[in-house]
Amino acid sequence: MLLHLSTWAEVGQYLERSRSIVVPIGSNEQHGPTGLLGTDWLCPEIIAYEAQKSADILIGPTFNIGMAQHHLGFPGTISLRPSTFMAAIGDWTCSLAGHGFEKILFLNGHGGNVASIEAAFSEIYAEASFAKRRSGFALKLCNWWDLEGVGELAREQFPTGHGAHATPSEIAITQWALPETIKTASYAPQIAPSGPIREALEFRARYPDGRMGSDPAQASQEKGGALVKLAAQSLIREMDAFSSESVPG
Amino acid sequence: MLLHLSTWAEVGQYLERSRSIVVPIGSNEQHGPTGLLGTDWLCPEIIAYEAQKSADILIGPTFNIGMAQHHLGFPGTISLRPSTFMAAIGDWTCSLAGHGFEKILFLNGHGGNVASIEAAFSEIYAEASFAKRRSGFALKLCNWWDLEGVGELAREQFPTGHGAHATPSEIAITQWALPETIKTASYAPQIAPSGPIREALEFRARYPDGRMGSDPAQASQEKGGALVKLAAQSLIREMDAFSSESVPG
Amino acid sequence: MLLHLSTWAEVGQYLERSRSIVVPIGSNEQHGPTGLLGTDWLCPEIIAYEAQKSADILIGPTFNIGMAQHHLGFPGTISLRPSTFMAAIGDWTCSLAGHGFEKILFLNGHGGNVASIEAAFSEIYAEASFAKRRSGFALKLCNWWDLEGVGELAREQFPTGHGAHATPSEIAITQWALPETIKTASYAPQIAPSGPIREALEFRARYPDGRMGSDPAQASQEKGGALVKLAAQSLIREMDAFSSESVPG
Amino acid sequence: MLLHLSTWAEVGQYLERSRSIVVPIGSNEQHGPTGLLGTDWLCPEIIAYEAQKSADILIGPTFNIGMAQHHLGFPGTISLRPSTFMAAIGDWTCSLAGHGFEKILFLNGHGGNVASIEAAFSEIYAEASFAKRRSGFALKLCNWWDLEGVGELAREQFPTGHGAHATPSEIAITQWALPETIKTASYAPQIAPSGPIREALEFRARYPDGRMGSDPAQASQEKGGALVKLAAQSLIREMDAFSSESVPG
Amino acid sequence: MLLHLSTWAEVGQYLERSRSIVVPIGSNEQHGPTGLLGTDWLCPEIIAYEAQKSADILIGPTFNIGMAQHHLGFPGTISLRPSTFMAAIGDWTCSLAGHGFEKILFLNGHGGNVASIEAAFSEIYAEASFAKRRSGFALKLCNWWDLEGVGELAREQFPTGHGAHATPSEIAITQWALPETIKTASYAPQIAPSGPIREALEFRARYPDGRMGSDPAQASQEKGGALVKLAAQSLIREMDAFSSESVPG
Amino acid sequence: MLLHLSTWAEVGQYLERSRSIVVPIGSNEQHGPTGLLGTDWLCPEIIAYEAQKSADILIGPTFNIGMAQHHLGFPGTISLRPSTFMAAIGDWTCSLAGHGFEKILFLNGHGGNVASIEAAFSEIYAEASFAKRRSGFALKLCNWWDLEGVGELAREQFPTGHGAHATPSEIAITQWALPETIKTASYAPQIAPSGPIREALEFRARYPDGRMGSDPAQASQEKGGALVKLAAQSLIREMDAFSSESVPG
Repeated sequence: MLLHLSTWAEVGQYLERSRSIVVPIGSNEQHGPTGLLGTDWLCPEIIAYEAQKSADILIGPTFNIGMAQHHLGFPGTISLRPSTFMAAIGDWTCSLAGHGFEKILFLNGHGGNVASIEAAFSEIYAEASFAKRRSGFALKLCNWWDLEGVGELAREQFPTGHGAHATPSEIAITQWALPETIKTASYAPQIAPSGPIREALEFRARYPDGRMGSDPAQASQEKGGALVKLAAQSLIREMDAFSSESVPG
Repeated sequence: MLLHLSTWAEVGQYLERSRSIVVPIGSNEQHGPTGLLGTDWLCPEIIAYEAQKSADILIGPTFNIGMAQHHLGFPGTISLRPSTFMAAIGDWTCSLAGHGFEKILFLNGHGGNVASIEAAFSEIYAEASFAKRRSGFALKLCNWWDLEGVGELAREQFPTGHGAHATPSEIAITQWALPETIKTASYAPQIAPSGPIREALEFRARYPDGRMGSDPAQASQEKGGALVKLAAQSLIREMDAFSSESVPG
Repeated sequence: MLLHLSTWAEVGQYLERSRSIVVPIGSNEQHGPTGLLGTDWLCPEIIAYEAQKSADILIGPTFNIGMAQHHLGFPGTISLRPSTFMAAIGDWTCSLAGHGFEKILFLNGHGGNVASIEAAFSEIYAEASFAKRRSGFALKLCNWWDLEGVGELAREQFPTGHGAHATPSEIAITQWALPETIKTASYAPQIAPSGPIREALEFRARYPDGRMGSDPAQASQEKGGALVKLAAQSLIREMDAFSSESVPG
Repeated sequence: MLLHLSTWAEVGQYLERSRSIVVPIGSNEQHGPTGLLGTDWLCPEIIAYEAQKSADILIGPTFNIGMAQHHLGFPGTISLRPSTFMAAIGDWTCSLAGHGFEKILFLNGHGGNVASIEAAFSEIYAEASFAKRRSGFALKLCNWWDLEGVGELAREQFPTGHGAHATPSEIAITQWALPETIKTASYAPQIAPSGPIREALEFRARYPDGRMGSDPAQASQEKGGALVKLAAQSLIREMDAFSSESVPG
Repeated sequence: MLLHLSTWAEVGQYLERSRSIVVPIGSNEQHGPTGLLGTDWLCPEIIAYEAQKSADILIGPTFNIGMAQHHLGFPGTISLRPSTFMAAIGDWTCSLAGHGFEKILFLNGHGGNVASIEAAFSEIYAEASFAKRRSGFALKLCNWWDLEGVGELAREQFPTGHGAHATPSEIAITQWALPETIKTASYAPQIAPSGPIREALEFRARYPDGRMGSDPAQASQEKGGALVKLAAQSLIREMDAFSSESVPG
Repeated sequence: MLLHLSTWAEVGQYLERSRSIVVPIGSNEQHGPTGLLGTDWLCPEIIAYEAQKSADILIGPTFNIGMAQHHLGFPGTISLRPSTFMAAIGDWTCSLAGHGFEKILFLNGHGGNVASIEAAFSEIYAEASFAKRRSGFALKLCNWWDLEGVGELAREQFPTGHGAHATPSEIAITQWALPETIKTASYAPQIAPSGPIREALEFRARYPDGRMGSDPAQASQEKGGALVKLAAQSLIREMDAFSSESVPG
């Protein structure tokens, strides 16, 4: 069930049978010579949409702009500052918790978001902790590549050249879902360099075409489809476990 | 051209021929008994996507959560505080301006966003104004219903019961674009009441089913399609005029 | 009754008979070759002071600095950033609501304030809305030129050359109240140009003497007096209506 | 010369002969049984207006709401939080410095403002200090009772019962300037208690009628006039010294 | 008793016998040719540690970075902006108050901290004051040189050349506690100049070696020891009085 | 070399031979029945102090309060909110970078700090990235247990019951450095439970004595000493590598 295509009354009915929701969250940032700028928010959206086809899971709207300050040297990247990102995650959470959602899982598609999302969670929990009261909800961050079995499949599909940014696995997922957007390029070197991530101009000097450690040429629609199917099933199990987790008293 | 389905290199090439971009912006909020929670971000997205099919316009990702604090009494509404919303608009703008975009038009789908977006523009401009330097870019807010001819068509289509929230025009647009999501309900009263907008619980007490002054039953796919076609053509002209506007020295 | 010339006990007694207050709010900014820098806070102050002479209305201190970032290219302009302005409006409101004021009307003298004031209202209401509680008060923004009959009188007095900034109507009001400050100049062109408002340096390039669309030479003390008298009576009626408005439960 | 009664061109001309400005700053807060709520912003305004009658000093608009959180237990008090107050002082300063003012003196009328104003100055200077650049302006805080000779005169006028809040000296000043607002009351005890200042409810419990250590019955118009005359002359000398102070290199 | 060398259970037991705590607070900033960068946080830490040897006083961890923006022109200085400093003091206070501490004394070692600490206190109290509730705790700022008798002793020890920064008294205290860190230099002039404090580059231009009005050559371990012993005893009395102070209401 | 025991001139000389600095950073929070509240800032301080005895490394003052909101249910814990923590890290960094430090390593002692520190780094870098300029410095976060070989040694020393909070390794380090503070207790269960970390009251319900997965009884001074010696040598190598890393162009 997609929240944005539902009415408020339908969401009200859903809340009578479940207090859980999945929020796809990602980033809009350069993904190398062939990757889509939307890759990191499209991947969790694709997986979450697939999952709700076979399970009664509510999927929130996609949080499509994340923390991508290091990619700002490449045209088309849009980034929030961590402080803005955290404030926005707080408002999303506060909105959802106010409706009675008690288990909110952010299905993340961008490694660069992780620290800011976790810091946002702590900021939100701190309100309750400083006030010596219960928050009433639990937040969970889950990267799609950490869903059960997904990392293993990606390593099997791409034993070399998976890398850390503009990876063949994420590009395969968008190829499967959006075949009309498949782009090609010749890569030099075939596997991009690796190294630290700091500010945007240093990033572009280190990684001239935007890739980090990856060879996106290995992506294929078939591999993408296999990843999505597996991730969707793992997400359903993840939500089952999260929803049924009891919080001590 | 859709930014999120493009590569950074493609956006770089676009910037060589144009410095303009459209950002659909809306809200995820209750829209009465039959309106989709995503109505306000879907409408500008639908119009903008339609426009770029027949003109070389770049459409950014959709800013899908806006200022909807007054709708928080209804399940599914997600709102940013004005201060968060403004900070996020600032970061989007700063990201885009950094790439060289000089004319940024926010195509808005939610009346409740207007004040916060304009305040955000002033906050952004103030950085330059306090520092006695030029900003280097121009921002424009355009509600889709204010695009040339659109308000007139809506008034013609819905001479009574158009109202101010969960209007038949916006619902018609989502019906045209997403016919599988059409919902029906019986409305009592047929035309909802009108009045002021303050905090969420007062809002729900005033407007029990979420509508304000509207009769969404008048919506139809055909009317929605006519609105989209007209709005898309007006948006193209609007962007032509905005792009070619020269800024004094 | 002027709050700043009263004691706390007198305000306490007022609160036993009324829960309403008017706060004049404006801006300190350039007003063309002859307009006073204080025009925009003087006008609502003059009108509010006049109104309380013939009605039991409490007038708060004047909020004299508003959102005038676009006028910072002209000496003497003092502006708050929208975010600062909003925080200050929040603190004023929270102070007044804490004393038991339930209807707070901001009588505004500056068009550039409107978006920020409305965004501030939403920010204030959002505290209650996110917390799922009632705010306990209602806020109203009222521009003096929107008071009943005032706009009509101004259009009658100044059928051409009223414009949008440094208007003959606002200058007439200060001329009536502060005749010793009347200044003269020759205007070229007689009616100033119109156009968009962005950052301060672009503003000064577009509007070299500070006027927008106006011909202040048409102002006179007599016209100002007529405007003040009418506005004061309309304000009294506006406050009567606002004070007696019941808020649903 | 009063900035708010001048045009931008007149301020521009003033800047050619001086780079200094006085900003009266105070608070709107309870002042005991007979003191006006506006006492703390009226006093510096009265003194500054008096001073500019006999010297070419520019007086900015009055900053009329300050840091009075401890007085919020009494009706009519309006306070900014320190953080809001500091942000606003920053925007005032940045506006004025942008026009070329190099010496900005805040003539303060409220002891409770001192820490926040000084913290605001440090916040403003820190921008330059962190960036390793010069600020280009000097800020000075001057309480009117610290102007040369003024404290001595007040101690002479009120050897006992001057106290720390709702003092006879400040009340005398408003009596002199606004004789129509003089109020009377019987005080019990004649001299109010003294003690610490913390939050508002504790404050009201300690100081039930709002006075701290003072006996306002000793105020008179004559004493007020003497204080104003002396303070105005001292302010002129203070501004002379401040304006001519050279800043090392 | 030192909090950081205790367990949570030990602090829990302490709270059963006392609700008071001392937090040493200072700054890490240049202290002239021979003063340690840590002088301002070491001094209150040394005094507080000494005091708890002979009294059942709980000493919190040392808040070692304060408001030293004016010293940023000298290597090694680390400063918080006032706004950051205030937020941090708020979080420390909120943490401690949440555990039940009702009397929190900040023993301060840096004059430049005073305004920001007091503004922070007001910011914290304002939460309660705006909400019309009691805060439940009292905050006190105490500079170590204002402890009973300490200023007198310092003036006796250093009748000339005590000055305002890099004073012989503070340097003597670190010499007594950390004799292995004693440094020597020849001072020119022997007594440093005095003047205003603004931004960092102006500060360094005025005070080239970092001292203000002081002659640190007069410091000695013996004098430092005498100051520490006296200050420690005064702190114990100060805490006794503060702890036993009853709060009305 | 310890910055806080140096003069500004000594730091200035150090900067001529190195542009690197280590900042110990931790938290003041409960550490189970026997762990010191200061454990997490003492450990990196102990290691860093040890390292500078045998290498020319500059150690900054210890950042002793971190992000410990989840421990606020236990007396003595002091926490910053993530947003405050990030602002403070920003000011520390900006202070140090302003002096010319180009490689700043935060040696961290608290797992709960990691997300906020990394988010802070991104916030700092974002200033440069949005402005399209180089930052001029590199930031590195290094947990002491991630220093080369240290994790391996800890796993060898404590093959079971190391856990995630109040670990025998961190307690061993404080035992070695501060033998007078060694505490004992009987633990039930011997190895504490594991699970998620959310707000403070839930945390205390899950982990009643504060430990997570650990058996601190296995700690010993000898094991602590071995950890410190190894960590100090690894830190020296880490700083060598970091200092000599060249940043591309």
